[in-house]
Amino acid sequence: MQAGKQIRYWWEDLRPGDSRELGSVSPTAEQILAFASQFDPQPFHLDPEAARASVFGGLCASGWHTRSMAMRLMVDHFLSQAASLGSPGLENVRWLKPVFPGDVLSLRHTILESRPMNSRPDVGLVRTQWEMSNQRGDKVLHMEGWSMFRRREPGAVVAPAVVEAPPAG
Amino acid sequence: MQAGKQIRYWWEDLRPGDSRELGSVSPTAEQILAFASQFDPQPFHLDPEAARASVFGGLCASGWHTRSMAMRLMVDHFLSQAASLGSPGLENVRWLKPVFPGDVLSLRHTILESRPMNSRPDVGLVRTQWEMSNQRGDKVLHMEGWSMFRRREPGAVVAPAVVEAPPAG
Repeated sequence: MQAGKQIRYWWEDLRPGDSRELGSVSPTAEQILAFASQFDPQPFHLDPEAARASVFGGLCASGWHTRSMAMRLMVDHFLSQAASLGSPGLENVRWLKPVFPGDVLSLRHTILESRPMNSRPDVGLVRTQWEMSNQRGDKVLHMEGWSMFRRREPGAVVAPAVVEAPPAG
Repeated sequence: MQAGKQIRYWWEDLRPGDSRELGSVSPTAEQILAFASQFDPQPFHLDPEAARASVFGGLCASGWHTRSMAMRLMVDHFLSQAASLGSPGLENVRWLKPVFPGDVLSLRHTILESRPMNSRPDVGLVRTQWEMSNQRGDKVLHMEGWSMFRRREPGAVVAPAVVEAPPAG
C-alpha cells in the first residue's frame, strides 16, 4: 500500500454480490503493435494483412494485452483505494472475442465469495469475477480469481488447517 | 501464420506427455518498472521502499508481466514454428513466488491432453501446462490451457455436438 493513501475498501467492505463498473480503455493500433512486438509477436497481432487472412479477420490485441489493460483499470478504479495484498492466481480465463484497435473496453468487477484467511487473522480472501465488454456489448474477456485484502478488524487467531498458496503479485 | 514460415509442429505432432524447455528470460528492474507503470501501478511493483515493507520483501514484477514474458518465450521457441490458431483461455493460473530483478526464468511446456475439434475437421485441440522456474529451481508460475492447432491431415467432417468457445487471441 502507498504511504498515506486513502483506504476505502478493507476486506469487510467487499460483500458477495457487490458489483462495480471500473472504467474503460480504448487501445490504439500503435499500442496493440507495441505490446505484441514485446510479448506476443504472432502475425495476427503484428501484420494487418496476415490478420485479415486469420480466424480473427483483422489486426487484434494479444489476449495478454487485453488482460493487462483490465488489470490497469482494476488498479486505477479499485485496488488503489483498497487494502490489497495481491492474488495467488486466476481461474476460468476466457478470451471470448477479438479486441480491435479503437474498441472501447469496459470492466465490471463482481464479488462472488468471501472468507477469512485461516493462517492470517489480519487478512481476508475474496473471490471475484472480472468481465470486460466492448462498445457493442459483447463480452471480450472473463476471469475469476481469489484476492487478499487486509481486514479492518483482525479476527481471532485460528491455527491454519490448510497451507495456502503464498501471494506472488 | 507467417507467409512462408516453416511449420514444424502440426496438431498431430503434439502428443500427451511431450515436454519441452522453451528458453529463458531475465527481467531488469527497468523492465519491471516500465511494465508496472503501464499496467499494474501498485506500490510493490513501482516503489522499492514500499516493496521492502510488503509481503514480497522487495521490488517484484507484476504477475501480468511474468505471464507476458512466458508468452514471449512460448512464441519464440514454439508457436513461431507451429500451426497455431490461438487459445480460448487458461485455467489454474498460479503466481507461486515473486519475481525479482535479475531472476533468470525458464519455461517448460508439457502436453497434457489432445483431441480433434468436433466443429472443425482441420483443427485439433491440445491442453498444455506451462511452468516457469527461477534460477534457484523455485516454480514462480503455473498455468494450463487449451490451444488450437491446424491438422496436417484434416479428419472427416463431424457434426458439432458441442458449440465450442471461439478463439480470441
